Amino acid sequence: MTDSELWYTEYYTEHVRFSYRVSKLLLRKQTKFQLLEILETPEFGRLMLLDGKVMLTQRDEHVYHEMLIHPAMLAHPLPKRILVVGGGDGGSIREIVKYPFVECALLVDIDGEVIEASKEFFPELTSGFADPRVELKVGDAAEFVKDTDERFDICFIDCTDPVGPGPVGPAQALITDEFLDNVKAILADDGIMVVQSESPVYEIDYLKTYTSRLKERYPHVATYVIMVPSYAGLWSLTWASKTIDPSIEITRKPPKGLKYFTPELFGAALQMGKLDLWGARPHQL
Amino acid sequence: MTDSELWYTEYYTEHVRFSYRVSKLLLRKQTKFQLLEILETPEFGRLMLLDGKVMLTQRDEHVYHEMLIHPAMLAHPLPKRILVVGGGDGGSIREIVKYPFVECALLVDIDGEVIEASKEFFPELTSGFADPRVELKVGDAAEFVKDTDERFDICFIDCTDPVGPGPVGPAQALITDEFLDNVKAILADDGIMVVQSESPVYEIDYLKTYTSRLKERYPHVATYVIMVPSYAGLWSLTWASKTIDPSIEITRKPPKGLKYFTPELFGAALQMGKLDLWGARPHQL
Repeated sequence: MTDSELWYTEYYTEHVRFSYRVSKLLLRKQTKFQLLEILETPEFGRLMLLDGKVMLTQRDEHVYHEMLIHPAMLAHPLPKRILVVGGGDGGSIREIVKYPFVECALLVDIDGEVIEASKEFFPELTSGFADPRVELKVGDAAEFVKDTDERFDICFIDCTDPVGPGPVGPAQALITDEFLDNVKAILADDGIMVVQSESPVYEIDYLKTYTSRLKERYPHVATYVIMVPSYAGLWSLTWASKTIDPSIEITRKPPKGLKYFTPELFGAALQMGKLDLWGARPHQL
Repeated sequence: MTDSELWYTEYYTEHVRFSYRVSKLLLRKQTKFQLLEILETPEFGRLMLLDGKVMLTQRDEHVYHEMLIHPAMLAHPLPKRILVVGGGDGGSIREIVKYPFVECALLVDIDGEVIEASKEFFPELTSGFADPRVELKVGDAAEFVKDTDERFDICFIDCTDPVGPGPVGPAQALITDEFLDNVKAILADDGIMVVQSESPVYEIDYLKTYTSRLKERYPHVATYVIMVPSYAGLWSLTWASKTIDPSIEITRKPPKGLKYFTPELFGAALQMGKLDLWGARPHQL
């Protein structure tokens, strides 16, 4: 059988784009909130896309999920109550439930159809949903953080892209001042927030503005860079905490079986987040 | 003026490809050895391509050239005689001549038309060619390393891709056993060889085989990973030496004005090179 000439193209900016050869279109569905697509590809396995942006691929989702979750889980003195905003694919929860001391992991995702599609097409990501400590709430996380009386040790913002070419979707509500204030309010005093903060290459202006807004709210803010081939090669995550510096020595042992995360690699990721490496576009060169 | 819908597409494998919007095609020429193209793009500035592969862009060439050159130049006790194989664009030489103790920097590139095109379209890369310590030799580096009686403190292999989709061109002669043996023979006892060793994502099999062949020849071999947006986000460089471990503490001061290299970031790059992070293709998942 020859390869199909069906290609899927993601625009990183209006001027550059990445394309995957597609062996099978598994799902294409307009949910109440976004366009949900699932593809089979020869290079990256299955992909999930929302509004034309790659959310995950089977080949490299472990990099993103391990690096989003484990640094904070290992640095916090004893994280028992965890909130995940977004993350309906399940990858973040899968990593969180690897810690026996977690008492409650609450996921709030606005789009229940993403959760259902992930269960069907990415069972290896949704395995954590069966854990009795996990609670799934389909709803608006911006409303949730405004209204809840609960407090959390760590809050992970595992959202879609709030900027970029094309439609930006529900994540817009997760970058307002009000949302940032409300997240801070529901975090314990030694709490940590970790958020996916976009491409350090193509959205550097967004990243700078966003981290400066976090710095107005938290004394410890640091961006770290991870290597995710399907996220244009490089992606940024940002850490914010009232009391915990991300560069403290990690003494807790990571769970067994991780494929990417090591404390050394997290240290390297922090180094890479310190530099503004590709800020200049040609007109600035 | 609206953006042109002229796009240039580079295949990373037969299954994934990256495209740049092109504002101007500046040069397209079949040399004796390869297809040489130079484009103007809104996202990356000017690009040079050989046989359809991006060699450099104005926006991120500094990452590659600084990380190829400076770690070895700073770790070696006193590198006076430097050989660059390939590198006709001039970026490597530009970095090497920043060191006052360099006595001779010899560049051997097979394709004189690359050197001439770089002088015309990338004058910021070729500034080092005017340095009196620099010698440019247009010729076959595989022959040169076989025949020369000269000895070098550092040899940089700054070549085109010897593997990948499409034509592989003259770099094939630079990965033979004979070439590796000859490079080792012309290196001083405390010499270092640093080579661009392809994508750690898409050419991991090549990278593993190549480094294992280096390990048969050198006791100190280490791959480090650099972040180059126009090289699929991530690229590998590999260090080989008879006596010098790349993780030694760097005490020499780097030249002023570097935009990417720091000793800390080199340490991070070494960490990232230790891991086989994205080896599995879907059929292996």
